[in-house]
Amino acid sequence: MVKDFDYKRELTEIFSAAVYRVDPEAMILEQCRLDADVLKISAPAGRQVQYDLSGFDKIMVIGAGKATAKMAKAVEALLGDRISEGLIAVKYGHTEDLRIIRTIESGHPVPDDNSVKAADQIIRLAESADENTLVINLISGGGSALLCLPYRDDRFSADLSDKQQTTKLLLECGAGISEINTIRKHLSGIKGGRLAEAIYPAVSLNLILSDVIGDRLDSIASGLTVPDLSTFDDAVRIVEKYNLKDRLPPEILRILDAGKRGAVSETPKPGDPVFAKSENILVGTNLSALKSAEQKAKDLGYNTLVLSSQITGEASEIAKFYLGIGRDLQRDLGLLPRPACVIAGGETTVTIKGNGLGGRNQEMALSFLNELRDFPGIYFLSGGTDGNDGPTDAAGAFAAAGICSEGTARGLDIQEYLNRNDSYNYFRQTGGLLLTGPTNTNVCDIQIMLVV
Amino acid sequence: MVKDFDYKRELTEIFSAAVYRVDPEAMILEQCRLDADVLKISAPAGRQVQYDLSGFDKIMVIGAGKATAKMAKAVEALLGDRISEGLIAVKYGHTEDLRIIRTIESGHPVPDDNSVKAADQIIRLAESADENTLVINLISGGGSALLCLPYRDDRFSADLSDKQQTTKLLLECGAGISEINTIRKHLSGIKGGRLAEAIYPAVSLNLILSDVIGDRLDSIASGLTVPDLSTFDDAVRIVEKYNLKDRLPPEILRILDAGKRGAVSETPKPGDPVFAKSENILVGTNLSALKSAEQKAKDLGYNTLVLSSQITGEASEIAKFYLGIGRDLQRDLGLLPRPACVIAGGETTVTIKGNGLGGRNQEMALSFLNELRDFPGIYFLSGGTDGNDGPTDAAGAFAAAGICSEGTARGLDIQEYLNRNDSYNYFRQTGGLLLTGPTNTNVCDIQIMLVV
Repeated sequence: MVKDFDYKRELTEIFSAAVYRVDPEAMILEQCRLDADVLKISAPAGRQVQYDLSGFDKIMVIGAGKATAKMAKAVEALLGDRISEGLIAVKYGHTEDLRIIRTIESGHPVPDDNSVKAADQIIRLAESADENTLVINLISGGGSALLCLPYRDDRFSADLSDKQQTTKLLLECGAGISEINTIRKHLSGIKGGRLAEAIYPAVSLNLILSDVIGDRLDSIASGLTVPDLSTFDDAVRIVEKYNLKDRLPPEILRILDAGKRGAVSETPKPGDPVFAKSENILVGTNLSALKSAEQKAKDLGYNTLVLSSQITGEASEIAKFYLGIGRDLQRDLGLLPRPACVIAGGETTVTIKGNGLGGRNQEMALSFLNELRDFPGIYFLSGGTDGNDGPTDAAGAFAAAGICSEGTARGLDIQEYLNRNDSYNYFRQTGGLLLTGPTNTNVCDIQIMLVV
Repeated sequence: MVKDFDYKRELTEIFSAAVYRVDPEAMILEQCRLDADVLKISAPAGRQVQYDLSGFDKIMVIGAGKATAKMAKAVEALLGDRISEGLIAVKYGHTEDLRIIRTIESGHPVPDDNSVKAADQIIRLAESADENTLVINLISGGGSALLCLPYRDDRFSADLSDKQQTTKLLLECGAGISEINTIRKHLSGIKGGRLAEAIYPAVSLNLILSDVIGDRLDSIASGLTVPDLSTFDDAVRIVEKYNLKDRLPPEILRILDAGKRGAVSETPKPGDPVFAKSENILVGTNLSALKSAEQKAKDLGYNTLVLSSQITGEASEIAKFYLGIGRDLQRDLGLLPRPACVIAGGETTVTIKGNGLGGRNQEMALSFLNELRDFPGIYFLSGGTDGNDGPTDAAGAFAAAGICSEGTARGLDIQEYLNRNDSYNYFRQTGGLLLTGPTNTNVCDIQIMLVV
């Protein structure tokens, strides 16, 4: 290896290729193409989906999520005045200059009154679409909070505070995330496939950017357009399991009981006709970002391997798995010949022990460095694709022998920084931070390891 | 997948293939072959090493380690009366019926008087070997405790208790394992290459079974026949770093000081002529066991991948990395087409929180099961190659949907068992234990995951 190998530049290039692949605007423009009157969309696994726009009277754009304004901007650039009207819900400040599609800014991560207003207006717009309408539905992470519609008809009057109180109780009693979602979907007028009900009988093209590990469509933005596998029976069973009967708001209990008796319609299930003309396409996922990183690494001359897009676990321990793979690669006993680039993604956690500053990506890089020390030839980067790791201005951090040496020269003890969860301050002093600024997208985190 | 897929049988077959590969007796007989007068040994990376036995007056067998008696048995079966004499040090009870090679049983993991006796006799035997002697040296895990020879000449009289006290002080002050080894090697008359000094000018064939992650030859059994990279200067610096000067036994300090002044010869360094006729061959490693497991998995029809032989970290978190890979494989987005078998090895740790019964392999399997739950199609096994996981009679445990269902039927809460570190009792009640009995070998742990 030449001595001036610029690992930071190469890792950053590979990371940037991943992030660029899921840039909301670029992603739509690269995957959707207008060929005369035909809209063609590249879907995963080489599938191609197309719509003859001349067959529709009207094109409507709706959606919700933090990245949706940029997705909408791309759709306007693509379709221009073919779009009749539109409305999207985005996080406060996450707006773009749009010509046709209107924007409502609402609360995230905690829904607010604007979340209710946005959901109400989007449902009304969807209901106005007839079978000659194409509804283009833009969905990305955060959509679940940005839209909030307590189930309502002339018999029920649950409101935002009822739903907030319910979520709070569920979190406190220790219910799992899938249990919480089962109840949420059955209290909502828009989630768990209810938006698809409203869109029907219009044709619906749902373009989805996934911020959920494993890309389960019924989890991203609470499955607005996806069949719901859970039932009112399940919801009531969860209420009983956690003894919440006496503590839930009365209107919430009334809705769930009515649903169980069949007096409120179930969320739509697989095979329901409302999904017959609805197409869900994942336009961006952690895995698609990893594949793009892999291509860049190949272009740079590396032998590559994408391990998984679903890595979870304690960040500092997961680091050791990567290094275990790196060490075998270095002995030429591993998966690939050198120079090798191993790529994976997911979302890890950090169990806080100290009062330092950091994020899960910086913590992982620091734990990696703690094991690697000043051993040469292995270079690591962990970064959040949204450009924001924990409460810091960094996206993540690098681990490499040179950073350890820099730390040693400054008298910094890696283990002490780890004990305090103070990875940011270690890397700040050693030049190990990855600083990208906000990227306006999010497909969780990415790790890249080079072994040369 | 057929419903009666017998994952336990398949995982056990693959695990057994790994363990059989490093069976001390079978391993020597498969890798060493006598062709007329020529002894041929298969070394890693396809290398072949051979010795014309007719060129030697004498063949001597020495060695130390828990697996050495079985290795010696194989050498006797191979060479019979060509062996003139021999002496090996084994753990109490780990003997075999040997015809020519004598055995001393000594202390492990804490050295005892017999460890000193064994080391003294082996050094004398090695010194008696001349340049027409072939010394076959059998080394496996545990050799470091089974042989103990405080450095001695007419000026120094350090004894076993001095060394024991030194080790105890080093452990208490928080010195790292490589620091402890630096001091140990410089206080020993047999470690850090000193045995190679004693064997020289005889020809030495060192057959090594590695129980050390990464297979560093200078770590296995404290590098009896391997150049030492550390110095007396380093040793004295470590004493100063931890302020041990006033607490170490006086004889120990005298030896280190004399060494630093050059009044005791350094341990032999790379390039020293004592290593010129010495050949170190790794006859068994975690990686060789993994490769054998891989071959068995291929024979069973799996697409296979060996990830790494150097996996470390907290067992319960490392489990999540495996499952992350398994989940992408199951979505057909992963590294391999199904049916897939992913194999890796190493040695993880468990941070004890409760007073349950278990071991690192069972803990990893239980954490895997806690994430997997009753999700079908992914099957996992973690086991210790020595057949002994923690203070239990199990080698490890399986994780699969069927085991979770069995636990649910019995009202067992996986998370509670994890919190108590009580994996053994969970798996005992659900039929999830891997029970092999002692295997008489050890190359750390192995994990196998099937995704069908």
